[in-house]
Amino acid sequence: MSANPNLNIVPFVSVDHMMRLVLRIGVETFLTELAAVIEEDFARWEQFDKTPRVASHSDEGVIELMPTSDGTLYGFKYVNGHPKNTKEGRQTVTAFGVLSDVGNGYPMLLSEMTILTALRTAAMSAVAARHLARSNSRVMAIIGNGAQSEFQALAFNAIVGVTDLRLYDIDPSATQRCAANLLGTGLSVKICGSSQEAVEGADIITTVTADKQSATILSDNMVGPGVHINAVGGDCPGKTELHKDILLRSEIFVEYPPQTRIEGEIQQLDADYPVNELWEVIAGRREGRASERSITLFDSVGFAIEDFSALRYVRSKLKETGLYAELDLLADPDEPRDLYGMLLRCKAQIAA
Amino acid sequence: MSANPNLNIVPFVSVDHMMRLVLRIGVETFLTELAAVIEEDFARWEQFDKTPRVASHSDEGVIELMPTSDGTLYGFKYVNGHPKNTKEGRQTVTAFGVLSDVGNGYPMLLSEMTILTALRTAAMSAVAARHLARSNSRVMAIIGNGAQSEFQALAFNAIVGVTDLRLYDIDPSATQRCAANLLGTGLSVKICGSSQEAVEGADIITTVTADKQSATILSDNMVGPGVHINAVGGDCPGKTELHKDILLRSEIFVEYPPQTRIEGEIQQLDADYPVNELWEVIAGRREGRASERSITLFDSVGFAIEDFSALRYVRSKLKETGLYAELDLLADPDEPRDLYGMLLRCKAQIAA
Repeated sequence: MSANPNLNIVPFVSVDHMMRLVLRIGVETFLTELAAVIEEDFARWEQFDKTPRVASHSDEGVIELMPTSDGTLYGFKYVNGHPKNTKEGRQTVTAFGVLSDVGNGYPMLLSEMTILTALRTAAMSAVAARHLARSNSRVMAIIGNGAQSEFQALAFNAIVGVTDLRLYDIDPSATQRCAANLLGTGLSVKICGSSQEAVEGADIITTVTADKQSATILSDNMVGPGVHINAVGGDCPGKTELHKDILLRSEIFVEYPPQTRIEGEIQQLDADYPVNELWEVIAGRREGRASERSITLFDSVGFAIEDFSALRYVRSKLKETGLYAELDLLADPDEPRDLYGMLLRCKAQIAA
Repeated sequence: MSANPNLNIVPFVSVDHMMRLVLRIGVETFLTELAAVIEEDFARWEQFDKTPRVASHSDEGVIELMPTSDGTLYGFKYVNGHPKNTKEGRQTVTAFGVLSDVGNGYPMLLSEMTILTALRTAAMSAVAARHLARSNSRVMAIIGNGAQSEFQALAFNAIVGVTDLRLYDIDPSATQRCAANLLGTGLSVKICGSSQEAVEGADIITTVTADKQSATILSDNMVGPGVHINAVGGDCPGKTELHKDILLRSEIFVEYPPQTRIEGEIQQLDADYPVNELWEVIAGRREGRASERSITLFDSVGFAIEDFSALRYVRSKLKETGLYAELDLLADPDEPRDLYGMLLRCKAQIAA
């Protein structure tokens, strides 16, 4: 027997456990508490090791690893992006992640992150809007009504105070589904026939479309003064949603500039075009929007620290909920240097 | 129901399953078959996306991600290295890995890799020696008799034809344990009182010590003509085992030069010092040792393609052995774009 008989075990949150965890806590509460953890981590941004994600591109899509560490905990996420997947009944994006102890390198949590990424992306967008949008923002347009849209709606309702949604998707059935899923949430939902119609009167415009190509979901004339744009869908090289002229009129806020310049809307701009780092606003180092008439843009691509925050939050909920399984992931020989002896003892045990 | 009800499932090989798999196949057969897969992958080296490992260093150790892809499969390993861990009853190195389908980004295998890494490191060393050592090599010194030593012994016996071992460790109990574990394998084992004694008459010298520091396990006068050195322990910045003069007398073979120049014995040499790539020998692009009197050195640090080979090999054994569990790792909504609806249906199910 090892001194600590559980050194081999890593807590594992499956998809089923994640769904039960979110439902137990409540989606809105989960988003609000997760947003608070993200803000906490963004406020101590300088403590983190930061690196652009490590991407493996192919014709069909991309597989990425997103590591970061605050010196005490280490986290990484595995995530793919394959737009063609939906045709085969698969998700465009799936993900899982691990949180580890920097002191000994042992994983402390393995978790599904497909659902968790949807939640953290929405929480992150809402955090950015809370710091950048006009404080009386109540109406949000959502252009692109796929898997991320309901999470965005609920996060902006819970965290920013958005009460009215204007939905548009090139696929009307996606909009119908999104609207149906949001019934009973208290949100007032209007189904729109075009992007132009959706953005009318909107305080906040969320673009969250999925095609892997340079698209113009928003053209320059559609964006009036005072609007906050939450640009979620443009998140890899060659994939953008906004006309360049909108960028040139906006105060641009990003997560981690070296990554966003490769993946975000600002890939359309010169490599030294000035952008603002969102963490500085959250940490109180600088102001958010310059005026009520400014156009603010959160050029969201998703950064490793947000996943770190999400894993940290999920881990904090395990003890009280018990919603995890124990995974026999780490070899734990009786004597640490005797890995081969562990095999021999297993052999003897099987034979007995 | 989804069209394919198992899209959420990823096969998982736990530590217990890995031990049973290795024992079912037999350690020597496992090593030999794994060596063949490594040779296969090294022979098609140019097909792989290659990158130095992504390391997160701290005072206590390092956590690394090692990704690679051949365009069809994608693999990565998570591995830590914390020399102080053994004092707390933990492993210095633990690891797990994932193999995925490049076409859709979905993971196809999650596996423990602490045991598997020990096996692949030994198989890799033996593959290198089979191509670099004199063909009549029968005697091997192993300096450093920790967790990796028995695996090296068995791999060199099965793959290279080594019959006689000469063991030395600064901790005599480690040598005793290694010798005891190798009883009944047919290997002739001599316990030595010094490194000098261990290398006497050895055709192959394996150095596999663990201290994270520049050490001189082998000094220049200890290495005679015709010897093959299998340098396994020097594998991170600041951690080397060989005196620089040995390097200058040797024909040096490495896995992936950009990584080895940072982590291997050759970190002691100029950044442009000429080294040979092992894959070219395996692919038949160039000769191994120049003469019977040459000193050949395999400066092993461990590269992502070896882990990829190991995961590929393990995956090939799952169907016939059934030694895996099914992990509910991937969210699989009935309708791919309806992730939030999946939560709602889970809620209805719990309430029912």
